[in-house]
Amino acid sequence: MTESTPLRVGMVGHAFMGAAHSHAWRTAPRFFDLPLAPRLTAVAGRDPERVAAAATKLGWESIETDWRRLIDRDDIDLIDICTPGNTHAEIAIAALEAGKHVLCEKPLANSVAEAERMTAAADSAAARGVYSMCGFSYRRTPALALAKRFVDEGALGQIRHVRAQYLQDWLTDENAPLTWRLDKSKSGSGSLGDIGAHSIDAAQWITGQNIAGVSALLETFVRERPIAGELVGLGGHGGADAPRGPVTVDDAAIFTARFDGGTGSGGTESSGAIGVFEATRFALGRKNAMRLELNGTKGSLAFDFEDMNSLWFYDADDEPNAGFRRIQVTEPEHPYTGHWWPVGHGLGYEHGFTHQVVDLVEAIAAGKQPTPSFADALQVQCVLEAVEASAADESRWTKVPGGWDGR
Amino acid sequence: MTESTPLRVGMVGHAFMGAAHSHAWRTAPRFFDLPLAPRLTAVAGRDPERVAAAATKLGWESIETDWRRLIDRDDIDLIDICTPGNTHAEIAIAALEAGKHVLCEKPLANSVAEAERMTAAADSAAARGVYSMCGFSYRRTPALALAKRFVDEGALGQIRHVRAQYLQDWLTDENAPLTWRLDKSKSGSGSLGDIGAHSIDAAQWITGQNIAGVSALLETFVRERPIAGELVGLGGHGGADAPRGPVTVDDAAIFTARFDGGTGSGGTESSGAIGVFEATRFALGRKNAMRLELNGTKGSLAFDFEDMNSLWFYDADDEPNAGFRRIQVTEPEHPYTGHWWPVGHGLGYEHGFTHQVVDLVEAIAAGKQPTPSFADALQVQCVLEAVEASAADESRWTKVPGGWDGR
Amino acid sequence: MTESTPLRVGMVGHAFMGAAHSHAWRTAPRFFDLPLAPRLTAVAGRDPERVAAAATKLGWESIETDWRRLIDRDDIDLIDICTPGNTHAEIAIAALEAGKHVLCEKPLANSVAEAERMTAAADSAAARGVYSMCGFSYRRTPALALAKRFVDEGALGQIRHVRAQYLQDWLTDENAPLTWRLDKSKSGSGSLGDIGAHSIDAAQWITGQNIAGVSALLETFVRERPIAGELVGLGGHGGADAPRGPVTVDDAAIFTARFDGGTGSGGTESSGAIGVFEATRFALGRKNAMRLELNGTKGSLAFDFEDMNSLWFYDADDEPNAGFRRIQVTEPEHPYTGHWWPVGHGLGYEHGFTHQVVDLVEAIAAGKQPTPSFADALQVQCVLEAVEASAADESRWTKVPGGWDGR
Amino acid sequence: MTESTPLRVGMVGHAFMGAAHSHAWRTAPRFFDLPLAPRLTAVAGRDPERVAAAATKLGWESIETDWRRLIDRDDIDLIDICTPGNTHAEIAIAALEAGKHVLCEKPLANSVAEAERMTAAADSAAARGVYSMCGFSYRRTPALALAKRFVDEGALGQIRHVRAQYLQDWLTDENAPLTWRLDKSKSGSGSLGDIGAHSIDAAQWITGQNIAGVSALLETFVRERPIAGELVGLGGHGGADAPRGPVTVDDAAIFTARFDGGTGSGGTESSGAIGVFEATRFALGRKNAMRLELNGTKGSLAFDFEDMNSLWFYDADDEPNAGFRRIQVTEPEHPYTGHWWPVGHGLGYEHGFTHQVVDLVEAIAAGKQPTPSFADALQVQCVLEAVEASAADESRWTKVPGGWDGR
Repeated sequence: MTESTPLRVGMVGHAFMGAAHSHAWRTAPRFFDLPLAPRLTAVAGRDPERVAAAATKLGWESIETDWRRLIDRDDIDLIDICTPGNTHAEIAIAALEAGKHVLCEKPLANSVAEAERMTAAADSAAARGVYSMCGFSYRRTPALALAKRFVDEGALGQIRHVRAQYLQDWLTDENAPLTWRLDKSKSGSGSLGDIGAHSIDAAQWITGQNIAGVSALLETFVRERPIAGELVGLGGHGGADAPRGPVTVDDAAIFTARFDGGTGSGGTESSGAIGVFEATRFALGRKNAMRLELNGTKGSLAFDFEDMNSLWFYDADDEPNAGFRRIQVTEPEHPYTGHWWPVGHGLGYEHGFTHQVVDLVEAIAAGKQPTPSFADALQVQCVLEAVEASAADESRWTKVPGGWDGR
Repeated sequence: MTESTPLRVGMVGHAFMGAAHSHAWRTAPRFFDLPLAPRLTAVAGRDPERVAAAATKLGWESIETDWRRLIDRDDIDLIDICTPGNTHAEIAIAALEAGKHVLCEKPLANSVAEAERMTAAADSAAARGVYSMCGFSYRRTPALALAKRFVDEGALGQIRHVRAQYLQDWLTDENAPLTWRLDKSKSGSGSLGDIGAHSIDAAQWITGQNIAGVSALLETFVRERPIAGELVGLGGHGGADAPRGPVTVDDAAIFTARFDGGTGSGGTESSGAIGVFEATRFALGRKNAMRLELNGTKGSLAFDFEDMNSLWFYDADDEPNAGFRRIQVTEPEHPYTGHWWPVGHGLGYEHGFTHQVVDLVEAIAAGKQPTPSFADALQVQCVLEAVEASAADESRWTKVPGGWDGR
Repeated sequence: MTESTPLRVGMVGHAFMGAAHSHAWRTAPRFFDLPLAPRLTAVAGRDPERVAAAATKLGWESIETDWRRLIDRDDIDLIDICTPGNTHAEIAIAALEAGKHVLCEKPLANSVAEAERMTAAADSAAARGVYSMCGFSYRRTPALALAKRFVDEGALGQIRHVRAQYLQDWLTDENAPLTWRLDKSKSGSGSLGDIGAHSIDAAQWITGQNIAGVSALLETFVRERPIAGELVGLGGHGGADAPRGPVTVDDAAIFTARFDGGTGSGGTESSGAIGVFEATRFALGRKNAMRLELNGTKGSLAFDFEDMNSLWFYDADDEPNAGFRRIQVTEPEHPYTGHWWPVGHGLGYEHGFTHQVVDLVEAIAAGKQPTPSFADALQVQCVLEAVEASAADESRWTKVPGGWDGR
Repeated sequence: MTESTPLRVGMVGHAFMGAAHSHAWRTAPRFFDLPLAPRLTAVAGRDPERVAAAATKLGWESIETDWRRLIDRDDIDLIDICTPGNTHAEIAIAALEAGKHVLCEKPLANSVAEAERMTAAADSAAARGVYSMCGFSYRRTPALALAKRFVDEGALGQIRHVRAQYLQDWLTDENAPLTWRLDKSKSGSGSLGDIGAHSIDAAQWITGQNIAGVSALLETFVRERPIAGELVGLGGHGGADAPRGPVTVDDAAIFTARFDGGTGSGGTESSGAIGVFEATRFALGRKNAMRLELNGTKGSLAFDFEDMNSLWFYDADDEPNAGFRRIQVTEPEHPYTGHWWPVGHGLGYEHGFTHQVVDLVEAIAAGKQPTPSFADALQVQCVLEAVEASAADESRWTKVPGGWDGR
């Protein structure tokens, strides 16, 4: 590997997502044969001390205190964006225009308008061999990648039902502190964009169908929270007596949906699946229950991230002795898993990020568009915006604009 | 028991539900000490041969071929209605006016208008000591009765989320035959009233909150089916070449909801829970997945009828070593279970019907209104109607009329 | 059914098992078409008041206070023995000699010697058309009957591993009272015969192999218990200050085993399966975990009575997308279940007893030996005795005598 | 961290275990604050090309083709032994005598005699501040570490039952090839030492009790296998027509055990727990089911590595609404997990190795004996030998020598 062409990465941001991305860049070449050799060249953050400490801890060779400096540097090939959503558009567009590949955390942006500008920039760049990807890392969870394979192979037949839930509980406590994730100006939305976006992307990707319309309801259970506080993971305790500020995002999002059937057909009369979505950070006891169930004419699938190494599969051909099979997605034939441990030796959360890096590096080396593209992520953004529009209009049915067409 | 006052039952209908009710009447006094002694006095059905065979098989002492004859008989104290929904109103009102107690299968009726007339009749009769009950038998599943107890005792705190699914798969096959359950004139609706009604009743009963508004989507996946066919259970095979007739009911119903907070507060700004409901008979691989999850500020509950002797309970007081407890609802202290077998020796589907009879007989003997009353069932009917109205109006938010007030 | 030939039953004993058997006799003809019509003709018990109350409660037509009177009566065709094990031999042999069919609760007897005498009597009676059966009711749990079908059809290939546990916890409390089940003179043994016998019978029956040898360890954790006490189910509270008496049976039994391969081969070098067995009433939190796992060359099975309507099946032909299927054993094609409710509507503990009665009545009407025969139960008794012998001799390997050969 | 004192590691062997250890050394300092900075200084292997490729792939700075050269080098502080068991004693003793710390894969050795020599060497070295640890990595699985905490805090009361199974299936196929793991001269034993050793160590460590005696049975199902073949993970396909060689180890090991009660008491009459153990690589469908259940007087625990981020806990104080809680062992308060991701974001197999390195580095820096010590591993070895002795002597009860006393 020492002789491979390097892929020199500059990462912006170094919190939770930064740690996950750093681990992925470090680890991917140790378990996969990559066509390019990732180097952790530089990390950027505003606070010099904190970014220096992060560089040492996470293994980056140098630091910058302004992301623009990363883009200026000649020794950087790829910009990895791990900052809040309100900064994505500016950084990504600048990077792409400077000829740097981009990996951008999800959600792609805080509005459809931003996402459209980013997608236009991505399209231009791609024409010059500069690629971009949005970090919907759950696509690289082996069990979900196997789900995608089943659907593509026809094992489910025509899909009739999509049932997606993303349930966490770290905001249940009314005294959990205000963080940027609860500030609409930084995060764009609450549970909807933070975790619901993962469900939307996964559902569209696995079914091969886009969501054509939605009817939605948003709720904010706790409208004010302590401004400061000690963070423990995503939750923490702000103190009941601390001064409070307003929560400006949704605490929970629920919506019904129709899918477009996958080949351009749309609207109420389509033969697409129907779906139910729920995203919340108030489902007490559910820690990271990113659940997806699909029912088709020939088979069904069920997944819950709280048992992330398993995929449940029902095959009508097995009847009358059928039942949901708990497939341990650790066989050599399964997506990604053959590169790791023997069967039954499960993987963890961070492996999705490592696989994401693997696929990104391979696409860049091959001169192919990696997925999910910014256009794919824009489609998710359109759903998010339709959900908010419907919720603001008495849950009225709201069409989702079709796929990106270069507008 | 031989010296107990008898409670002489006349049952109308003798198919699937008739068999379940007969078993309940026969079995209840064997395991519970009842204040009245049920007698299986007469069963009514239109076909003389079939009703005679059913009487012998199910253990009824005599037969009638017209339900009106049952009501005329002096030796009948209670009419048990096990026929399709379109017949409920006429039979129930006639019985109540004749001074017979009534047990009526769910859904109470095929329209709110019918249900209101029935409720008015029930109220009048109750004033004369003649009682009525609607057969939402899942209330008597021990695990759901324990769930109700937990909520009433405050173990969940304020409820924020209701997540209800009723998933079956017996219509997945496009050649499953047309039956009365697929004919709107007989059944009133499809999955919505057949199974969704159970979810609605259970959710309202356990939370102690009524649904205040809904936004809904209905879908019919298979619009024509073979007219005749051999039934196997609820499903069966109609034959691909048989002549087809139209399915006039929904195959699937999904809706979002707001609850009224339980003490009169209502409307969008209430502090009530939000809910997601789904009912379908096309969830391949799910046989009778009547699932209910509740998330509150202090605890959570989860139930799935496919593991009906368990209730999953999460108690925030257990943190940080908390987790959903799989409570086997078979302890002597749990609802109903002490009358049966030692702990861990599970019960089955039919026990809900037996417990229903126990509670009904005790209420009648005590001169108290049994639950669910017709008014409770009318509330469910109002939700069903609001769901249909919303689905027909672009999923627009639709208020559910408040509780029965004698209108 | 009114014109069917009756099968007039006389039952001895009316406690826990008596209630289960009574329910079975009452219920079987309501769901199955039986060639003979069971009548609950008489029940016998020593205490006149208690037996009279039981008769009323359980639905028996008459009473006796001496089981010998049941045998003398001309209007009794079958003796159903629901008493402690020390009484089985005398009652069963007398009944068979008097020409009465016999259903005898398990374990068949308290010693191999008794069981051999009973089997000899059964063989003589069978030659005269008088039949006997031992009540290993778990054979009639649909999921275990389906397991047997899978093995018989070759779905597992050659069986290599048997893993059987029967875990309960009702004696965990040191103050649970002494009952007849803890008195060796009445019960023969403790967890070994009470619940371990079920595991042994199920394993031998499903695999079609007999246990050829064992190495065992028995343990009594609590050696003295309160003599009197209030019973709650099988457990109860005897009071810490009550006078204590000795527990004379095992609290837990664990043993390893070799099976004979099913066709007469035996001994250490056989190609039979190896097995691990455990029976205890001190597995805190396990209420009725009668678990059985089989691993073969082609497939595997797993069962746990705490989820009694499911059978887990692994089919190597499904690889690499294989996984244990959770089969809901409620399909019309599954053993017994088509007579009850629609798919997914689970059965309970007592249904095993009802199915036992169905099979017994059909065998008697057909003039065929019902199973498990006394000879089958004797084989279980031989294993129990070998286990006790090995435990008393430093766990030394102890051969189990082969099948009954009329000795 | 750049200024930390380095801990320079030399690793022997670079197959499956070498990859896991390399990942651990690389990753530990990225998520934990370590008092010494691990450096991947050198890796040794016999084949120059393969070891060079491994060094590049796994991130080692230099290579050696003889492990003795590693020990000779001044720039190595710790020897990490990842070779088959027959080489452990020689390498470990030489390393310790040369003043190198040692991390040695399990099982410690292929015989008690070897293990005793190693333990003696470890004791001598420890007196000079040179430490050693045996790689029973499952001790660092968070769920099992939490189990240990529960027992130590008394949450289970007195432990009565230990139920340990380690079930894999990668040898089910009769044509899986002969590897060193099936050659007794290299591996010492089969399933017993390979995976059963993990169960024994975990059971002794968590209960705080040693196994005092055993009665065992070993079985080899497939006595000859193809000599060559393509490996896929641990299994693979050797080809039905390839020449065959003898399997000289056990395919399955089952034994009963008594524990010593934890404070020196021993023998049959102790108050220690009783246990059942099973290790096999023929449990078709079980991929890495390292299961452990404990039942005590106050609580119970259950674990299955196939759902490795969960621990099931039953607390008798919760009765009558108790049930096994599925604790997701991902809370900040749980062992190790706070250093990784937010709650609910599970870890994988390799994290145990990373935690092992963390604990080892901390112990070395603090001048304390890391655990498991070689003496702890010797105790496991004594159990393995007693199991083999009992199996060879008709399963006779065989005492396990007590803990290491410097003999």
